[in-house]
Amino acid sequence: MDIKSYMQTVGRQARSASRAMAAASTAAKNGALNEIARLIRDRAESLLAANARDLEQARADGLEPAMIDRLTLTPKTVESMATGLEQIAALPDPVGEITDMKRRPTGIQVGKMRVPLGVVGIIYEARPNVTADAAGLCLKSGNAAILRGGKEALHCNQAIAACVRDGLAHAGLPENAVQVIDTTDRAAVGELITMPEFVDVIVPRGGKGLIERISRDARVPVIKHLDGNCHVYVDTDADMDKALRIADNAKTHRYGTCNTAESLLVAQSVAAEFLPRIGRIYAEKGVEMRCCPESRAILESAGLSGIKDATEEDFRTEFLAPIIAICTVPGVDEAITHINAYSSQHTEAIVTENYTRAMRFIREVDSSSVMINASTRFADGFEYGLGAEIGISTDKIHARGPVGLEGLTSQKWVVFGNGEVRS
Amino acid sequence: MDIKSYMQTVGRQARSASRAMAAASTAAKNGALNEIARLIRDRAESLLAANARDLEQARADGLEPAMIDRLTLTPKTVESMATGLEQIAALPDPVGEITDMKRRPTGIQVGKMRVPLGVVGIIYEARPNVTADAAGLCLKSGNAAILRGGKEALHCNQAIAACVRDGLAHAGLPENAVQVIDTTDRAAVGELITMPEFVDVIVPRGGKGLIERISRDARVPVIKHLDGNCHVYVDTDADMDKALRIADNAKTHRYGTCNTAESLLVAQSVAAEFLPRIGRIYAEKGVEMRCCPESRAILESAGLSGIKDATEEDFRTEFLAPIIAICTVPGVDEAITHINAYSSQHTEAIVTENYTRAMRFIREVDSSSVMINASTRFADGFEYGLGAEIGISTDKIHARGPVGLEGLTSQKWVVFGNGEVRS
Repeated sequence: MDIKSYMQTVGRQARSASRAMAAASTAAKNGALNEIARLIRDRAESLLAANARDLEQARADGLEPAMIDRLTLTPKTVESMATGLEQIAALPDPVGEITDMKRRPTGIQVGKMRVPLGVVGIIYEARPNVTADAAGLCLKSGNAAILRGGKEALHCNQAIAACVRDGLAHAGLPENAVQVIDTTDRAAVGELITMPEFVDVIVPRGGKGLIERISRDARVPVIKHLDGNCHVYVDTDADMDKALRIADNAKTHRYGTCNTAESLLVAQSVAAEFLPRIGRIYAEKGVEMRCCPESRAILESAGLSGIKDATEEDFRTEFLAPIIAICTVPGVDEAITHINAYSSQHTEAIVTENYTRAMRFIREVDSSSVMINASTRFADGFEYGLGAEIGISTDKIHARGPVGLEGLTSQKWVVFGNGEVRS
Repeated sequence: MDIKSYMQTVGRQARSASRAMAAASTAAKNGALNEIARLIRDRAESLLAANARDLEQARADGLEPAMIDRLTLTPKTVESMATGLEQIAALPDPVGEITDMKRRPTGIQVGKMRVPLGVVGIIYEARPNVTADAAGLCLKSGNAAILRGGKEALHCNQAIAACVRDGLAHAGLPENAVQVIDTTDRAAVGELITMPEFVDVIVPRGGKGLIERISRDARVPVIKHLDGNCHVYVDTDADMDKALRIADNAKTHRYGTCNTAESLLVAQSVAAEFLPRIGRIYAEKGVEMRCCPESRAILESAGLSGIKDATEEDFRTEFLAPIIAICTVPGVDEAITHINAYSSQHTEAIVTENYTRAMRFIREVDSSSVMINASTRFADGFEYGLGAEIGISTDKIHARGPVGLEGLTSQKWVVFGNGEVRS
């Protein structure tokens, strides 16, 4: 079968399964999730064996160590896949919730019902645990899923897919509710993102290049996560201890995550006090500082060395590394303007004791998460209490920020009448 | 200036104005809306004169009467534009509302804040009143707007745009918060829909051809309204009076609206009783019936003539005319399957006294509005209590069904902390 026919078949099966999933009871969906978890534990050895085959191939292909690392399953990661599915089973079912029911003058009652999106296509790279996570989230939210993992993880993904299929069948749900594409042909992705008749939304997970390519070519809505160029702004009225703790944690807790701060903005009036103190912490941890002239002068006159000049480009960059761009600004107005100009609209934090400036910051900064006196590292589905997340959206329509079960649903209008007609 | 540079300038100005609009007070926005309404009333004569110029040109160009009709302003439509803006001013401001605030185990409080989308591009055809409506809705929801009306309405749209600009200035808001494109060059649309750096969402209003073309070429999310192939399903346990009233009203109240029923499904067990009665009503009103063989046999044996056979295509068609497709089905299962296969996911209604089937119908029918015992004609922003509507979305992500002020906003995450960091 050629790729186009194969994908059309997959799409048609997914659409058909999505009808049954939308109508499925919470008990059936939870039953499937718990059974999949059980099967993953039961078959841990064969999952690890499949993973070993993938790893062998990956090493033979000369994949870089970071990629090999992401590809590797261990007994611990297998267990955490199973636990993750059980946690999803324990979350409230978002589907069917009716809200905002109001009686209208005509007599009809109008409200909204939360419903699955339908068919969700997920395109991801090496990590095989995404197969279990994404299947679990789509299943719980009443969607059918088409999963396209990285070719490096093919054997392992198919082994996980078999657990998912058997778990669905055990619960009396259609096996096609979760389909894992079993071809490594890249044309499959091209088909997946251009079948609006079968796919309602695409969630790409991977590097910026992959996501930009998919967004450009897709004819289906894409919930996308581009980069995380996050800011911490230390205001005139910042509590210095909180500011140090937050600027330190936001940058140095993990360097490679999307909610890590990449730029630090400091109000001029506190720069002479704050910058040398945070500068010493960064220097000690080996964080390179790329500064505006004013910040650089302050840091160097405090005896810090190795300070570099920041370029315009540095303020736009998601370093994902022990590097931070630093800029002093006159105050909150300029901080907001700088952030709205340079940030990737992911997550920004203000450190201040001033109520009015805090409120202005959260209202006027146009990012998916805005924080007062907290580390940007909290921008995460688990930290926000979503229970799980399929990704973090930097889009503005539909879902912004961490996307959990609710982000995989929509709301339709429901009208309860008693024979009313329009006059 | 070439079109590309012109549109880039418009886009840059809109983005800049959107920052001020996001921060604007409710009082300033309402002040602008009321002032625009006042100016429209004050300048009614010059609006009508501008419209007369457009009409003269339209007649010279040989536009068809329906188009001329949509283009024509009267003192009454001018007054209703003004009233519409005052009604928008009276609606609650959606921006800034914080909901779902929860304290997390880490100490942070996490919730959502409703915020404008940013810059909304609206592309529409002849009706000049859309200029005032769309400007009002975007303004109230804190967005900047770029409006691209039909070339037929150019003079009138510019006269309305002047009222909007003066009203914004009167309230101390940026005049560029609403820009009306003043070129009739179609390339302007091509630019507008491919500037994601300046435009956050496109709302096309017009024929299916226009909307499909825009959706295909856009590199910005589109809130689209394709066709309205709406269904009424008369169930086994339907109350016959309600069924007749609803099937009559849904089809014959207005033939040209998107929430008009185009297909009638009838449960086999009640077809012999129901079809002849509704058939007589339709026949009297000159509605052509295109039927499945079983429905046709029932109607003809009841003495009705002129009944036609329905083709597969008829069940997919938005007639926008006194024509209805009729099909008998064994029961609610087949009705749901038929609707999910043929409908355009706009609005569908079940007529039944059976609780369980009613609940199944609203859960399992995958359309933007699902109704029990009410006419599909109620699917409308005003009837739903939104106060105003920018359109009806047949999309599944972001906004489904009638889109009012809330559909022009999004929610970002807000975190209130006290110096918390992630460990």
